[in-house]
Amino acid sequence: MELLGWLGKGSASQTNPIWPSVPYEFVFDYIAESLEPISTLAGPSVVPSKTFDQVHGTQYDIILVPGGTYSHRKADMVHQLISCALNTAAGRVAGEVSPTIVNFVKNQNPGLKYLLSVCTGAWIVANAGVLEGKNATTNKAAFMRIKVGLTTTNINWIPKARWVVDGNTWTSSGVSAGTDMAHAFMEFLVGDNFTKVARNIVEWRAAEQGDDPFAHEWGLA
Amino acid sequence: MELLGWLGKGSASQTNPIWPSVPYEFVFDYIAESLEPISTLAGPSVVPSKTFDQVHGTQYDIILVPGGTYSHRKADMVHQLISCALNTAAGRVAGEVSPTIVNFVKNQNPGLKYLLSVCTGAWIVANAGVLEGKNATTNKAAFMRIKVGLTTTNINWIPKARWVVDGNTWTSSGVSAGTDMAHAFMEFLVGDNFTKVARNIVEWRAAEQGDDPFAHEWGLA
Repeated sequence: MELLGWLGKGSASQTNPIWPSVPYEFVFDYIAESLEPISTLAGPSVVPSKTFDQVHGTQYDIILVPGGTYSHRKADMVHQLISCALNTAAGRVAGEVSPTIVNFVKNQNPGLKYLLSVCTGAWIVANAGVLEGKNATTNKAAFMRIKVGLTTTNINWIPKARWVVDGNTWTSSGVSAGTDMAHAFMEFLVGDNFTKVARNIVEWRAAEQGDDPFAHEWGLA
Repeated sequence: MELLGWLGKGSASQTNPIWPSVPYEFVFDYIAESLEPISTLAGPSVVPSKTFDQVHGTQYDIILVPGGTYSHRKADMVHQLISCALNTAAGRVAGEVSPTIVNFVKNQNPGLKYLLSVCTGAWIVANAGVLEGKNATTNKAAFMRIKVGLTTTNINWIPKARWVVDGNTWTSSGVSAGTDMAHAFMEFLVGDNFTKVARNIVEWRAAEQGDDPFAHEWGLA
């Protein structure tokens, strides 16, 4: 969000002359099953802005599905993960995804311009059936559990990549890679002049797509 | 917080055997002037856990002071920034710091084991007088405004550094550099065996202290 927030309505990028103007203005919703604050594994609780019930009938242009052990509790609209922390021994990824979130992704997908997932958010997206026949990636610590935990074998999981693009679907590796994906997505949408200002303000050392030492760390490549 | 959260009480690192045990257990407070959710420049609102009034009389071991245009509204205990976004043209850094926050830092400082700041959080820490005679750094887009905006000239501002350590004071550059500082701080506290697990799960491509292209981008080095 440090990066994509600069595309938001009301952002300083819309009034400050150091920013080139762009043909996009994002309006963010942070959607969850209720409006109660959501505890995170790291950092303060966060407040959803809308419930899935409230956005029933709304077609979004872009959805960003975060991961974490809270995958079963929330999916956010263009909301990068606060934390994508995994209980790596207990294998808690499988089976905890809320049908509400999976159905939301499934129902939104045909009308989306872009679908993004960060970290284990790919598990949700895969469960919604929208990665069928596609290239995708996910958190490397959870990679094998996600790959073998799915009933489908028709997803081409790419182990060594900070993020993967296939058509309008963007999937990133573990949480930090989400910012590299956001950086590439911003560049794709509005070009490098705008993206460079954002990158330089938040001091993001952007990775290339293949700058992924973690596939090796987890024995995947 | 993606990194430091792993040192938290109740973290999976305390029960999952892939983590080496460590002699620290962090308890996090997120302190603000009221308990109302705080709007961020990017991402969902966040919920403070305590007010400055409530922690009056509590001596913390560690404080992490975030930045952002919300510097005047909150200071968090070991809370990394959600967003450290600056209105770079309007020069809004100067003059907006709440005396409550500055006094909190000033009063805590003599009893602290460590004082950390991220991004323009250094402006708050500098205003509290605790950087006198020290090396420090801050967000590179705001660097000159912070340096010349202070009444003191007795701080040695280092332009090219992801983070700077001087005694028990750790200051980082713009928001993303805060995670590099957190990574180095974790390594300093508990060693690389633990830090490596954390880094590999959140897939953080850790920078060295001098890996700072942004000093050049902003004409500082």
